Amino acid sequence: MDTQLKQALEVYQQSCRRQKAFQLAFYLESWDAETEAPAVSCEARAGAVETLSEMSYELATDPALKQAVKTLYEGRKELSPTLRHEIERQHKEIAKLERVPQEEYVKFAGLMARAYPKYVEAKRNDDWSAFEPILTEIVAYLRRYVVWRDGDKHGYDILLDEFEPGYGMAEYDRFFDLLRQKLVPLVKKIAEKGNADLWKPTGEYKVDKQKDFCENYIRKVMCFDPKETVIKESEHPFTSGFGRLDVRITNHYYPQDPASAIFSAIHEMGHGMYERQCDPALDDTMSGGGASMAMHESQSRLFENMVGRSYGFWQKHYPKLQRTFRKELGEVSLEDWYRYVNKAELSLIRTEADELTYPLHIMVRYELEKALFDGSLEVKDLPAAWRAKYKKYLGVDVPGDREGVLQDVHWAGGSFGYFPTYALGSAYAAQMVHAMKEDLDWDQAVSASTLKGVASWLKKKVHRYGASKEPKDILYLATGEGFNPDYYVEYLLDKYSKLYGIER
Amino acid sequence: MDTQLKQALEVYQQSCRRQKAFQLAFYLESWDAETEAPAVSCEARAGAVETLSEMSYELATDPALKQAVKTLYEGRKELSPTLRHEIERQHKEIAKLERVPQEEYVKFAGLMARAYPKYVEAKRNDDWSAFEPILTEIVAYLRRYVVWRDGDKHGYDILLDEFEPGYGMAEYDRFFDLLRQKLVPLVKKIAEKGNADLWKPTGEYKVDKQKDFCENYIRKVMCFDPKETVIKESEHPFTSGFGRLDVRITNHYYPQDPASAIFSAIHEMGHGMYERQCDPALDDTMSGGGASMAMHESQSRLFENMVGRSYGFWQKHYPKLQRTFRKELGEVSLEDWYRYVNKAELSLIRTEADELTYPLHIMVRYELEKALFDGSLEVKDLPAAWRAKYKKYLGVDVPGDREGVLQDVHWAGGSFGYFPTYALGSAYAAQMVHAMKEDLDWDQAVSASTLKGVASWLKKKVHRYGASKEPKDILYLATGEGFNPDYYVEYLLDKYSKLYGIER
Repeated sequence: MDTQLKQALEVYQQSCRRQKAFQLAFYLESWDAETEAPAVSCEARAGAVETLSEMSYELATDPALKQAVKTLYEGRKELSPTLRHEIERQHKEIAKLERVPQEEYVKFAGLMARAYPKYVEAKRNDDWSAFEPILTEIVAYLRRYVVWRDGDKHGYDILLDEFEPGYGMAEYDRFFDLLRQKLVPLVKKIAEKGNADLWKPTGEYKVDKQKDFCENYIRKVMCFDPKETVIKESEHPFTSGFGRLDVRITNHYYPQDPASAIFSAIHEMGHGMYERQCDPALDDTMSGGGASMAMHESQSRLFENMVGRSYGFWQKHYPKLQRTFRKELGEVSLEDWYRYVNKAELSLIRTEADELTYPLHIMVRYELEKALFDGSLEVKDLPAAWRAKYKKYLGVDVPGDREGVLQDVHWAGGSFGYFPTYALGSAYAAQMVHAMKEDLDWDQAVSASTLKGVASWLKKKVHRYGASKEPKDILYLATGEGFNPDYYVEYLLDKYSKLYGIER
Repeated sequence: MDTQLKQALEVYQQSCRRQKAFQLAFYLESWDAETEAPAVSCEARAGAVETLSEMSYELATDPALKQAVKTLYEGRKELSPTLRHEIERQHKEIAKLERVPQEEYVKFAGLMARAYPKYVEAKRNDDWSAFEPILTEIVAYLRRYVVWRDGDKHGYDILLDEFEPGYGMAEYDRFFDLLRQKLVPLVKKIAEKGNADLWKPTGEYKVDKQKDFCENYIRKVMCFDPKETVIKESEHPFTSGFGRLDVRITNHYYPQDPASAIFSAIHEMGHGMYERQCDPALDDTMSGGGASMAMHESQSRLFENMVGRSYGFWQKHYPKLQRTFRKELGEVSLEDWYRYVNKAELSLIRTEADELTYPLHIMVRYELEKALFDGSLEVKDLPAAWRAKYKKYLGVDVPGDREGVLQDVHWAGGSFGYFPTYALGSAYAAQMVHAMKEDLDWDQAVSASTLKGVASWLKKKVHRYGASKEPKDILYLATGEGFNPDYYVEYLLDKYSKLYGIER
């Protein structure tokens, strides 16, 4: 490595250390805001968050850094593969940031800090009008943003690519078309059959007991050390953290439903496991953590659905759940519970949707976001458009915006283009499970006392790479082929036609 | 205001905004580390904390800022009194920071991040040897630090002045001499009398019930809105926050002792009230929050001791406590409880010490710190010196370092010169109560259902000023005279000679 390259590397690494320090500050601020900060304090700290963003922006757009990345990018053949990939990503990021005026970037960060409490309040009071003005500001910003980024491209393509590199409307349209064509007929048949004969929970499932089952028992099954994992409650479950050694999870409990929190816990711990099993060698680089949104979601959904909703999993763990809720579940058979947690139905709430209809919830959001960015829809018309699509695709009437357009936190965080990765993640997961079955006894692995077998395979094939490679490359290395949604569709068709006794 | 001054003000205010943003990051990091962060993550985040300090240091020592403060300092007659006071303090701070080499400042911040978990572990295991090496590093740094600051001054004077401006060994020696002369004879007489005839708690006081009493009932008495205050648990109770609108308190519960957590809660809420009642006009300045360490401590101790340990207070609130612990306290009289919470005895633990002997605990620490900085004591000899002084002044044998030199967190945080402000704070408090009695019916105020009366007087006379004036000036405005420790000594002599039936 020549002197010029070495000097550039030094500048680059100094900047990374500082960006990581800001990341710690941002992470702690949002974790705190969403789990325990007094609501009255949000407005006051918004200014400080804005200022942190301003400093972080200055750092990211510092001419010396830009020059260093340019130098490293030109000499990238001499860098290690991990560093090379990092520099390629940084090069792209810098180009992106450069196009956004600093004062707009800073304003947006402040907007985000104010939007979350407004959203929470609006949802609590089922009051769309309290959220509409700030969401209008957010969308207006993003519409300007995509033009700054690349005036020639279709705006939504730019946002989609930010959450999953290499995927735009062309790819997602194809993907959702396939799902629509293959799944919609099955979903219709199941809806006609109905679930009248299935067991349903009644009475109250004490939150304390649910908590104990999730935080102690499920945590052990998922191979999480209690000393190393923080679990709290928040409006909407999420995973957060700072590197491999600080993984945090939130959950939300519903006394009428014993299953919701369990699957949320498994889901979030799936995300957490991905972070924890990253190669420690990547700790001090910018290549730790997940490779992309869909890759992250593939891990949570693999555990939540393919493992957590399998018959083998509950064969092993249902007796413990019965002991936890002796009065409520003592007389309920394993079969009944298995059918209950795999019930498919036309529903209102994405996070409570079943595995089969879930992608339809995503499709609604995908179509709405697409329309917001091709100009055919305005924010003020979102609630009505939401209702219309839920009626059309899911056959349900939305009783209030709390169960409709206000149900998800994502848009309040400025995340447009994020939702589609959820559906893509499930497809990645199915493809990985297909490959995993060639290396291990899947039925045995999911019904063991802990999920160590599945976790080890994923560590070796997926997790250890962190973000040091493109998601497409990791998928190829792990499964031996490029992205192929057929496994996902086949998995769903097979599972649900059997569950509901429907001929394919 | 001329253009030059205006420009300087702009530079200064931009810098303040950024320092406040770093303050948010530091506050959230330490709050998180001390209440819930996984222990394994501390080492990993120490690097990020170090980097944040590095950036904060660069900001504080930026030549443009220094020039701006100099310009403002020279033109300070044209500034508002609040801003003028701020600039005078900043001018002093800049002079201070300038003398510390940046790499040392940064190293120290990293040292601090590593010291806390080491201290917690050492205390948990009663293992001084696990803490000694890092404390040696801390003291070595501070010994170098005081030379950088001012090689001509006695090192400990510099540290004392940082925690309470205007107070050095001359002032503290006089103050402790007075306490020693007046209180030690009384303490000896009380120790001879003993507490054999006093009621003592037995059995277990359920932590859940203690928590409920502190977090719900006492919180209301102290006029804290549950929606606006976060209360958690930590090794050692403390108050933290970010401005008026984000006040947080921690507590620590002992099942064998129903009083400890109650007085910790009142104490910490006393600190919190000071922050909350600051003039909102100071929110966006660097003059919010408490004026000094001793001023802050005066507020916590005024509520903990002068209000919380008064007969009138328990006349009002003891029935509620009895209802909370019906089995344990139902048959215990108000008199017995009052005597119990005002028991004076020779004790080991500062935070559990009674109001009368408390200053002797401080005196031990004051003498040890003084010796560490005049070179007559080394860190390795601290445990033995600690034991000797506790034997001499408090007549007790220290059974282990956990109950001795490891009992307080302060030194692990690099805070030398901090302890003496605790004793000074009590003296400020007694002087304020003396003045308050001329404006309101004290007996009625402390026995009302909430402490609104006391809180309002303090808001008007002390809290609203925040840090916009020197502590000495606030004390003068509030009480009509300069610092006078006689009120404190008189208060203690009167209260405890009556309690123990000792002639004065």
